[in-house]
Amino acid sequence: MNAWPHLIAPTNHDVVEAAQRLKGIAHRTPVLRSNTADEILGAQVFFKCENLQRSGSFKFRGAYNALAQLSPEQQERGVLTFSAGNHAQAIALAARLLDIPALVVMPHDAPTTKMAAARAYGAQVVTYDPLNEDREAISRKLSQERGMLLVPPSDNAAVIAGQGTAALELIEEVPRLDVLFAGVGGGGLLAGSLLATKAALPLCRVYGVEPEVANDGQQSLACGEIVQIPWPRSTIADGARATALAPLAFDILQQGAEGIVTASDAQLMEAMRFFAERMKIVVEPTGALALAGALHGGCDVHGARVGIVISGGNVDLPRYARFLSD
Amino acid sequence: MNAWPHLIAPTNHDVVEAAQRLKGIAHRTPVLRSNTADEILGAQVFFKCENLQRSGSFKFRGAYNALAQLSPEQQERGVLTFSAGNHAQAIALAARLLDIPALVVMPHDAPTTKMAAARAYGAQVVTYDPLNEDREAISRKLSQERGMLLVPPSDNAAVIAGQGTAALELIEEVPRLDVLFAGVGGGGLLAGSLLATKAALPLCRVYGVEPEVANDGQQSLACGEIVQIPWPRSTIADGARATALAPLAFDILQQGAEGIVTASDAQLMEAMRFFAERMKIVVEPTGALALAGALHGGCDVHGARVGIVISGGNVDLPRYARFLSD
Repeated sequence: MNAWPHLIAPTNHDVVEAAQRLKGIAHRTPVLRSNTADEILGAQVFFKCENLQRSGSFKFRGAYNALAQLSPEQQERGVLTFSAGNHAQAIALAARLLDIPALVVMPHDAPTTKMAAARAYGAQVVTYDPLNEDREAISRKLSQERGMLLVPPSDNAAVIAGQGTAALELIEEVPRLDVLFAGVGGGGLLAGSLLATKAALPLCRVYGVEPEVANDGQQSLACGEIVQIPWPRSTIADGARATALAPLAFDILQQGAEGIVTASDAQLMEAMRFFAERMKIVVEPTGALALAGALHGGCDVHGARVGIVISGGNVDLPRYARFLSD
Repeated sequence: MNAWPHLIAPTNHDVVEAAQRLKGIAHRTPVLRSNTADEILGAQVFFKCENLQRSGSFKFRGAYNALAQLSPEQQERGVLTFSAGNHAQAIALAARLLDIPALVVMPHDAPTTKMAAARAYGAQVVTYDPLNEDREAISRKLSQERGMLLVPPSDNAAVIAGQGTAALELIEEVPRLDVLFAGVGGGGLLAGSLLATKAALPLCRVYGVEPEVANDGQQSLACGEIVQIPWPRSTIADGARATALAPLAFDILQQGAEGIVTASDAQLMEAMRFFAERMKIVVEPTGALALAGALHGGCDVHGARVGIVISGGNVDLPRYARFLSD
């Protein structure tokens, strides 16, 4: 594995620099309102639509911010990642824009659309058998053989700083926010959001939202150390199935997060339908975590100005159609 | 029927005034980009997202602009309309915001969600039997009995001027546009778009797009007078089933429209899926007309800066799910 100076904790300053780096490259996604959401929550709700981001999720921000800082030599050797989801697509797109070779390690049974998307962005896809092979071992081996840098989805200061730029844009546009909700997988989005928010709005309460069956982050905050859980196959929130928080993210969450609440699959489906029916946007299950948490997490939002980060919209249409019609 | 000074042709000046009236009331909807759309069309494409407008379509603009100009006496007596679709919802919402009584005449077999939406906005719903009763006769009778003003969906200068504000916002944000596409039912959106566009960008080519089986507008432009067609039940574009252009709109279209092209149901479904899969937005069949026309209408857009007005996103979720999975 290559040495990489991105294992020290990022700060708000890194988020501000990331925003400069992403200017004109990432979309400045719209902030949408919904009177119905306001009425239901008894609050003023501001939705930051990262489902409308390039590559379909906020992950593009962190991926591009990380890759843009590589040395010319590192860029020439290329990057690899082992995500089968939004981070892989984000790395593939960022690499294409920066003309960097990219390799994605995916289970051989990953959805064909995800493989096709990574390939369409120009990445090489290497498959493995998830039952009999270890993706991290394969990735390490490929990284060593090819000299390609492994870019993890959360445990990297440049990635976390990039993810924070979504919240940074939101608070630029909505000057006062009392509460902010963001989904949690490895914790990169929540950590970046905290860095962006707390510097400008120290009193803003920032909550993470996890799937009910993947509440390792909630447990970790409760006991003060990173808790690892078994692979939570059962939740529909496929982007938040991380089994543990990234250490870099955990440190930031411990310092600033108000708490982590959870949402059930039924609550995620309800939120997805709300987004489709009332707000006319396609949100993937993981992307609906923040709204589901605001609705059902028991946090006091009455009369507050509430930010909701919609993290992504990548969901196969047949699967999405089933969620809408179930 | 009440006299109403809105049967003279609107001008660009009326669109500019409408924009002032709608400021802070209608959403300034986002303009989205898609690299994939750019590649497919060989153009730079700018999508004006009126599916994200209040009430779910551009119709709110015209409805509010019309109702806000009524006299106090007219406002007290209230308004009625006989649309079962987006115009009805728009009138109901605009009336609620202005505290005006509203009545909507709908077929008794209209989707329950549409009736529920009109009622949720506070409108009274009167149903009729579409096989045995004439909605216009019923509306006239109710209008006379109750002194309520009938606000038609297209044939009204204030409505047309309001609809033009979507294109006005688009060209404010995207200073140079070479081509603009907008869907056509009664012609209000296309007429308003022409007023907004031609004043600022006289060389911009503005195309209307109709369902293949409801091409009365295309026929009308071809022969120089309004052609009436039988009720085109068969298209999925339920918002563009008007059987004839509104006279006020026709006059404007004759002067400025580059032409009207058509789209098949299959092309509309393809466009709806593109919006969901690649752009993460929910667009109703009628709302997909402009993109379908740009893709398949045979207009030269190569290398051009192209505006696409996405007119609405109101579609029942089960029906939408079928479109996505078919």
